[in-house]
Amino acid sequence: AQIALERDHEVQREIDTRYRLLMDFTNDSIVLVSVGSGLIVDINHNAALMLSRPRGDLLGRSLADFFVDHTRDSLVSALENPAQTGTAAVLEVEIKSSQRRLQMSGKMFRASGEQLAIVRLTDPGEGAIADEQLT
Amino acid sequence: AQIALERDHEVQREIDTRYRLLMDFTNDSIVLVSVGSGLIVDINHNAALMLSRPRGDLLGRSLADFFVDHTRDSLVSALENPAQTGTAAVLEVEIKSSQRRLQMSGKMFRASGEQLAIVRLTDPGEGAIADEQLT
Repeated sequence: AQIALERDHEVQREIDTRYRLLMDFTNDSIVLVSVGSGLIVDINHNAALMLSRPRGDLLGRSLADFFVDHTRDSLVSALENPAQTGTAAVLEVEIKSSQRRLQMSGKMFRASGEQLAIVRLTDPGEGAIADEQLT
Repeated sequence: AQIALERDHEVQREIDTRYRLLMDFTNDSIVLVSVGSGLIVDINHNAALMLSRPRGDLLGRSLADFFVDHTRDSLVSALENPAQTGTAAVLEVEIKSSQRRLQMSGKMFRASGEQLAIVRLTDPGEGAIADEQLT
């Protein structure tokens, strides 16, 4: 039983490592939010850059506070009602500090009984910039 | 101790859920490969689409087998020697079945004593297509 338990722990540590790496490695700007409180439970480096704050300053803060004209309720209701069932909801947000306009898409899921939302922030202009750099 | 253990399990299940969701939610095409064997240990939906195979057919297969002129050794040596230290290695690959040319970038990490590589497949033409769809 002890060996099985240790093996279990190893598998779980590995998944944890994979999760951390994937958050860092993805090109996407990703935020995980607690639906109940609206607080940021995890955020990757790319998303922290978009909000112009160090990652550590953002954990535990309300995501809606960084956006113009948004509250926890308005974000949650947008995420709850995607235009098409089964697809991610998409809405426009504006960052308070930089007036930068971003697209936010996300969906909700349940983990350990708590409802979380996984959210991606996208700069609509970034495709164009990436293309210029390629040519 | 029992309660602590159960709580431990819950946290780990939550990380597992987050990892699965992030793999599905990211726009990136992601493959996890065992460095020792060259076999695919995980692959997301987007990456499976690029390889034109159902995800289930790809798990446990050698990643290099899907590329023209590549072996486990050639992929590993490319990943081991990024052009710049600390950045992800980038190389060009061609899919055997479709002759589609992709960029592959990746980096290695250690999880549970085993070395894995996290790899992203990118279609260099995709930025241009995304732009056309926006206008």
